Amino acid sequence: MTETDALTAERARLRLTCRHLAGAGPVHPAEHFEAIAGWLREHGPHHTDAGFVPGLEPDNYGTGALVEDFEAEVAALFGLPAARFMPSGCMAQPIALRIWSDRAGNSVTAFHPTSHLELHEEGGYRELHGLHAHLLGEAHRPTTPADLLSLIEPGGAAHATGIASLLIELPAREIGGQLPTWDDLTALSRLCRARGIRLHLDGARVWQAAPAYGRSLAEIAALFDSVYVSFYKDVGALAGAMLLGPKDFIDEAAVWQRRQGGTLHSAMANIVSARMRLSACLERMPRLIERARKVAALFAVHPRAHVLPDPPHTSMFHLHLDGEREGLLAARDRVARETGIWLFPNLKPVPGEPARSSVELSMGPASLELDDDELAGAIALLFRA
Amino acid sequence: MTETDALTAERARLRLTCRHLAGAGPVHPAEHFEAIAGWLREHGPHHTDAGFVPGLEPDNYGTGALVEDFEAEVAALFGLPAARFMPSGCMAQPIALRIWSDRAGNSVTAFHPTSHLELHEEGGYRELHGLHAHLLGEAHRPTTPADLLSLIEPGGAAHATGIASLLIELPAREIGGQLPTWDDLTALSRLCRARGIRLHLDGARVWQAAPAYGRSLAEIAALFDSVYVSFYKDVGALAGAMLLGPKDFIDEAAVWQRRQGGTLHSAMANIVSARMRLSACLERMPRLIERARKVAALFAVHPRAHVLPDPPHTSMFHLHLDGEREGLLAARDRVARETGIWLFPNLKPVPGEPARSSVELSMGPASLELDDDELAGAIALLFRA
Repeated sequence: MTETDALTAERARLRLTCRHLAGAGPVHPAEHFEAIAGWLREHGPHHTDAGFVPGLEPDNYGTGALVEDFEAEVAALFGLPAARFMPSGCMAQPIALRIWSDRAGNSVTAFHPTSHLELHEEGGYRELHGLHAHLLGEAHRPTTPADLLSLIEPGGAAHATGIASLLIELPAREIGGQLPTWDDLTALSRLCRARGIRLHLDGARVWQAAPAYGRSLAEIAALFDSVYVSFYKDVGALAGAMLLGPKDFIDEAAVWQRRQGGTLHSAMANIVSARMRLSACLERMPRLIERARKVAALFAVHPRAHVLPDPPHTSMFHLHLDGEREGLLAARDRVARETGIWLFPNLKPVPGEPARSSVELSMGPASLELDDDELAGAIALLFRA
Repeated sequence: MTETDALTAERARLRLTCRHLAGAGPVHPAEHFEAIAGWLREHGPHHTDAGFVPGLEPDNYGTGALVEDFEAEVAALFGLPAARFMPSGCMAQPIALRIWSDRAGNSVTAFHPTSHLELHEEGGYRELHGLHAHLLGEAHRPTTPADLLSLIEPGGAAHATGIASLLIELPAREIGGQLPTWDDLTALSRLCRARGIRLHLDGARVWQAAPAYGRSLAEIAALFDSVYVSFYKDVGALAGAMLLGPKDFIDEAAVWQRRQGGTLHSAMANIVSARMRLSACLERMPRLIERARKVAALFAVHPRAHVLPDPPHTSMFHLHLDGEREGLLAARDRVARETGIWLFPNLKPVPGEPARSSVELSMGPASLELDDDELAGAIALLFRA
């Protein structure tokens, strides 16, 4: 075994056996399937004293009570007429924008420069759906009504043609989970309605946004024409997403889902995995937001730690650390060995700041298990090391 | 409970509790996940006498040993350089044709009139990828070299432009699992190579084709430029597919997979489900082909039963039954109640033949558990009832 291999193995051992500051903790992959099997033994075909009960059967190409009941449950949660389970947000969101563009006869959309569609999807919205995007506003802060006005008012880049849709991500992941103010968000919604622009919510982590605003998911959704949510972030399911909106919009989206290869023989694993976890996610989210503020404060007392945004808007934030990356990772490992606490998984370089590294910390069930004193001690050790 | 509800419940009970003639039998959905969990307890992180072993970790957006080792295993089985796990054939196949078209600078492809791409994918190849398809040959029989020549020779519809690719499905599902003769298949391959046409294999059920031809999967794949295989048909996994071909082709396909929303946070359920079942599928396939011929013969002695093709080419065939649909379904139910054997799941109308119904019978593990005499009795009862 080379020295690098030994280090990799040692880090895997620490990551898989320590308690975690962020996320769900070191869940054994088999636990997902043991939980799904248990749920299906209860809800699937089974025998009772009264005889055989067929119970829920596997979904079949997107149909059946197993998935349709869940779609109805999530649609009701958001106060929207219809919902469709899909494999991923990469599939759901370009489909939403495509439909709004087709209806408007205008291929132009707008979103934040750090949108997932721009950074992580190989230009699917453009290469597959022929859409064109204006990147709206400054990369380091949420979109404002002034950004939208400067695009569509006289002199703006989209003045002549307008835009068919605007996508807003709540919270904005790449900038540490920032949220626009509620006033800005409602103003954006009013502006879009007045100009006939469809407003789409990238709600990958919208579960965090509702308690952060002190609003219900339905109050947030009421500002939008269509909504995407994810089930593996925050909820902790294996994978999976849902697109929500008007009935005719969702029917059309289901056709595009088929065209993109997203209507599976069965998506039972992802459906059950999400369905059995959603209510616990909603229930713990207010505590995770509180926890993010506390954890951020425990880091912020150290001059080499910088929290973005400070204080956090939601249950996630970015942490910038001064120091050389390999030295910080070695310090993290030492903290794990000495305290049994795994502070963070990896560190990314901060562009333009060679002496600084960055990590995203998103609170999850594991974050609620660590008490403040032991965490403060672990963080102190990180900077002493 | 209405009379219809009661009938539906009774049929569900019979289907879920009887022994099945076709497929895998009435597998409880939880069994899939119990099996996956067991596999992951063995191959994932675990403790041994020598200490903690990190083991296989969940795949992460299409990377990691869990999926890459499986891709290498399947690529080796087909003697092809590279493979990529994907959610579905609906995703994999239009991507393959798109790549071949982009490289040829020609958006035209050709396939059988009953191809899955034409019948069941909402025109994704056209609506998403901008491809144009010639439907080649007659719907009731496999594609022949003469079909291809009549398309591309002087006077043929594609004479001026040619075609970038040809897709051949082995076996052709919609026509009862028919295979072209080996001579026709090799002639098609030679013709494509001579004319610079890329030949793509729709191998959703190619597992059946290899023993039916008495050839290896690699001998079949050697005739093609790219190959798609499915893991839920025959193999019995939850869902999932693979695209195989040259390394640069697969790298390009992975980019399209991302664009289509098919690169998931984790596809662990489908990957493990397929990986743990593939070798058993390959092992039992010769027996299933033999079984299909025997089962078809047991039906064919009855004048109201018609087998297509007769004898079956592979481990599947279509069965046409003379008689009124509801009466046939009621007879099937009576057979199930009296013999404990579930003969078929549903019946479809045969276009243009109002007094005839059709069902696809595909042999699976359950088919090997029924002995000839009890099956002959059940079939006799179906027609007596």
